[in-house]
Amino acid sequence: MYRSHTCGELRASQIGETVTLAGWVAKARVMGSMAFVDIRDRYGVTQLAFNENYSKELLEKAATLGREFVIQAIGKVAERSAKNANMETGDIEIVVEELTILNESKTPPFTIETETDGGDDIRMQYRYLDLRRDVVRKNLEMRHNLAQSIRGYLSAQQFLEVETPVLIKSTPEGARDFVVPSRLNKGQWYALPQSPQTFKQLLMVSGFDRYFQIVKCFRDEDLRADRQPEFTQIDCEMSFVEREDIIQTFEGMMKQLFKDVKGIEFDAFPRMTYADAMKFYGSDKPDIRFGMPFVELKSPGGVDLTSGKGFVVFDNAEAVIGVCATGASGYTRKQIDALTDYVKRPQIGATGLIYCRVEADGSLKSSVDKFYDAEALLQWQKAMKAQPGDLMLILAGGLEKTRKQLNELRLLVGSELGLRNAGEFKPLWVVDFPLLEWDEDHNRFHAMHHPFTSPLPEDRNLMQSDPGQVRANAYDLVINGVEIGGGSIRIFDKKLQSEMFDLLGFTKEEAQYQFGFLMNAFEYGAPPHGGLALGFDRLCSMFGGSDSIRDFIAFPKNNSGRDVMIDAPSILSAAQLKDLEL
Amino acid sequence: MYRSHTCGELRASQIGETVTLAGWVAKARVMGSMAFVDIRDRYGVTQLAFNENYSKELLEKAATLGREFVIQAIGKVAERSAKNANMETGDIEIVVEELTILNESKTPPFTIETETDGGDDIRMQYRYLDLRRDVVRKNLEMRHNLAQSIRGYLSAQQFLEVETPVLIKSTPEGARDFVVPSRLNKGQWYALPQSPQTFKQLLMVSGFDRYFQIVKCFRDEDLRADRQPEFTQIDCEMSFVEREDIIQTFEGMMKQLFKDVKGIEFDAFPRMTYADAMKFYGSDKPDIRFGMPFVELKSPGGVDLTSGKGFVVFDNAEAVIGVCATGASGYTRKQIDALTDYVKRPQIGATGLIYCRVEADGSLKSSVDKFYDAEALLQWQKAMKAQPGDLMLILAGGLEKTRKQLNELRLLVGSELGLRNAGEFKPLWVVDFPLLEWDEDHNRFHAMHHPFTSPLPEDRNLMQSDPGQVRANAYDLVINGVEIGGGSIRIFDKKLQSEMFDLLGFTKEEAQYQFGFLMNAFEYGAPPHGGLALGFDRLCSMFGGSDSIRDFIAFPKNNSGRDVMIDAPSILSAAQLKDLEL
Repeated sequence: MYRSHTCGELRASQIGETVTLAGWVAKARVMGSMAFVDIRDRYGVTQLAFNENYSKELLEKAATLGREFVIQAIGKVAERSAKNANMETGDIEIVVEELTILNESKTPPFTIETETDGGDDIRMQYRYLDLRRDVVRKNLEMRHNLAQSIRGYLSAQQFLEVETPVLIKSTPEGARDFVVPSRLNKGQWYALPQSPQTFKQLLMVSGFDRYFQIVKCFRDEDLRADRQPEFTQIDCEMSFVEREDIIQTFEGMMKQLFKDVKGIEFDAFPRMTYADAMKFYGSDKPDIRFGMPFVELKSPGGVDLTSGKGFVVFDNAEAVIGVCATGASGYTRKQIDALTDYVKRPQIGATGLIYCRVEADGSLKSSVDKFYDAEALLQWQKAMKAQPGDLMLILAGGLEKTRKQLNELRLLVGSELGLRNAGEFKPLWVVDFPLLEWDEDHNRFHAMHHPFTSPLPEDRNLMQSDPGQVRANAYDLVINGVEIGGGSIRIFDKKLQSEMFDLLGFTKEEAQYQFGFLMNAFEYGAPPHGGLALGFDRLCSMFGGSDSIRDFIAFPKNNSGRDVMIDAPSILSAAQLKDLEL
Repeated sequence: MYRSHTCGELRASQIGETVTLAGWVAKARVMGSMAFVDIRDRYGVTQLAFNENYSKELLEKAATLGREFVIQAIGKVAERSAKNANMETGDIEIVVEELTILNESKTPPFTIETETDGGDDIRMQYRYLDLRRDVVRKNLEMRHNLAQSIRGYLSAQQFLEVETPVLIKSTPEGARDFVVPSRLNKGQWYALPQSPQTFKQLLMVSGFDRYFQIVKCFRDEDLRADRQPEFTQIDCEMSFVEREDIIQTFEGMMKQLFKDVKGIEFDAFPRMTYADAMKFYGSDKPDIRFGMPFVELKSPGGVDLTSGKGFVVFDNAEAVIGVCATGASGYTRKQIDALTDYVKRPQIGATGLIYCRVEADGSLKSSVDKFYDAEALLQWQKAMKAQPGDLMLILAGGLEKTRKQLNELRLLVGSELGLRNAGEFKPLWVVDFPLLEWDEDHNRFHAMHHPFTSPLPEDRNLMQSDPGQVRANAYDLVINGVEIGGGSIRIFDKKLQSEMFDLLGFTKEEAQYQFGFLMNAFEYGAPPHGGLALGFDRLCSMFGGSDSIRDFIAFPKNNSGRDVMIDAPSILSAAQLKDLEL
């Protein structure tokens, strides 16, 4: 060992002991006859002291130390004259008796500090130096702790971690696979798994009863910001369970994680149907850290508080929906214009934004006063339960589009009003998703989750008569408006599975080719089962109060799928290509 | 939940309780007015009882149950009239009041029992049924327990588990990479990692101090029996350590694993130099469950107890080496002929086998009595410390080849004499490997471990003058003659690394192209570091007392790299190939 102690552990109680530390030079200050060097490792920082009176030679050596040099120092722990309450080791320093430079360092391209001067690109290129920064390393320490806590909880609940293969078979359904040419089986390819879905279902057929795995998955998608071609899932499956069992099990896990890692305790997580989530938040992953639920002023087959007043936009609209921004009546014209511009951006696509202020005296002032008198506006106010000081924001158009647009507006205003605090956590189960979604382009149904998701038992009879109305026995876990995971009770009955494939437009041959081994397995006694998968990268960033998953991955790829540090992907040698006969 | 209890937990203390069980029909016996059905799940087997007097209808239903049907039974726990001491639940049975068939099953292609009638091929094709067998599932349960125990130990020792990327850069050095075409970076490829070696070293540069990962690795090699294209490593690295620290840390881990999983406690593991391992066992992974060390009767620069007696084979041989098989003087002529045939097989390549019996009366009887008189043979006996009843087995030829051949013979005879018990564990550290090995074909040195392995400090000065004699600061962990893992103290000094690349015949450009990012990282303050990687599949099979790693992998591939269950690899669709522009 090059050290007797780490750089984070010495305290006043050790004063007088001779110790050996090793680490990196974080800071070196030479002042005439004295020098102070901060030595850093993963565990902390300790001050090394040099004094001309003690040793001129050592002082001179200390003066040669550059930032990030790797050094070893032997010396006595001494009380510091000027204590530093901000440092855990701030009561002491080491009076150095022996100094060894273990390795030198070039000057790093950016400062190794919490607040660095390095931009994103340079930090990614020198990721090994970026990882030396406390703030990044702490993210990965938390990731380790989360993984340990998850494994501990699930193991105690009799789950077995089983490794499923990485070199598997390509299935054209779903997202695009990464593929791997086989040299031993010429002309044939493996695929990297998008998830271990079929394997975990096979393990249930095998009687494993409770399975989990923290596992890398791969999707060759066009990358959007903060999406990685390789990502990590917490993948789980249970047998002989119903939806409630799965929800209880993983709610229990999340509670333990919050307790272990954040010290926060929770009551039962609230639940919301997909229908309500769309109706009240315009999203299947509502952020419920704040209120501002949607209020329909006009909806198909519902209320109508807007028609017949000559305002053509509302008259022609399928739906008119508002949110009440609490205490936002003080929004200036300029602020409201900015909101209008925001919802009119092509990505959101609203045609305009109507507002109505409830002034402090209770009077109402709207952008459509020309059409709606005080009495009409009062109806809106009542419907939206707006109080003096509130601001009603209203969008109109097709039902589905308007909900989507208003969701974006609600989130923006929530952020502006400071209602979306990264340190506050509001988990929510969203349940009763539709089983199928209609694909206009291909004129067919798609499975909203995947083809193995079962319908709610009470909707089973609609499978033939009205498949679009069938709700799935599926559930998503949403925290702070972010989908952390989801799952379903699976189909374990051959007849139902075959109906499902029919609805999805699979021929018998296609179903057999793609899922044959699973279908065959189901012939040999498949138990009722269901499961769930959580995005581990996303979970880590959520626990870390960050929007960026990249900060929680040791060696992430950029938006072009490149690792700029190792410069991958890269060109293969001719010999490699020849071996593969490509 | 479809059950109130598992099939393994009911005991006499629960007699009288009404319970619900769910599981698979393991066995059904209908005898006139009664029926007994064994219901099985992961946790055990419970007997269900049906009786005509209680319910004729239920009895009839029970009679329809086939093997592996999935059923749910509600009933009362009752004392069994004929108790079964071999079953944990053997004191009780369930008098069934309600029986539900959850799923039917075709008759499985082989019996789901510890001793199955299924051959290897059919069991691999129906792996999901093979996994239903107790004996296979228990292997994977042990694998889970080992992984949990490893993670617990290392986490307690401040190791952080960090996930390193799977889509990395191809390096032509070493074994063949599996490669993945990049769609977003046309003409470029990722490679799957053969090990996270460079990433773990980068993490040391990053100051992570202690890293581990239980991680999938990939090698596109021509498959030998019991080698898998994807395999799992326990990958570890530590900073500011010397060899002794690493050995102590992982010896501690192994001791805990043996204690946790096998209930066995160990003293300090013995150590052996590579030179001694080769000299005394002809192998760098000696099986020390039994003795029979090599004794040189003639060796270059050493003893010579064989020459000048007219036996040309020995006279012309560089080395004559024997082992003493304790108590084996009773070997028949036929048995000795079989040993001779064994060592003469082309894979071993000896030209013959000489033996010398020490009879019960102390007289010596050899196959070369024509050349060696009693006095000469006595010298051999003394050298080999052979006792009455022992059998000396002797090979001759080139030193290196003879050692290799005698190693095979020693292992065979050890097995025949019952000295290699699968339930006995003898760990051993093999140390001081050569740093380099000479490659006759390419007329250059190869790194015996990898190019980052450092020389022993005391051999540093031989790097220029006599590189072939330099010993590496490397170590292997061997258990029962199986290499479980190995590692080394790494080079962290640029100058030494550059000398090493020179010795390996890398040009500066090649070194920069292949390892540039690591070399660059080493410019910024690399700490002294070292590590170790253990083969997890092998570790599991060793703990399970089996030679086959396949039995400890949930979904293994066959010797052609195929997964016969899912039928992978397979042909890609034209659309997929078009996307990749291949």
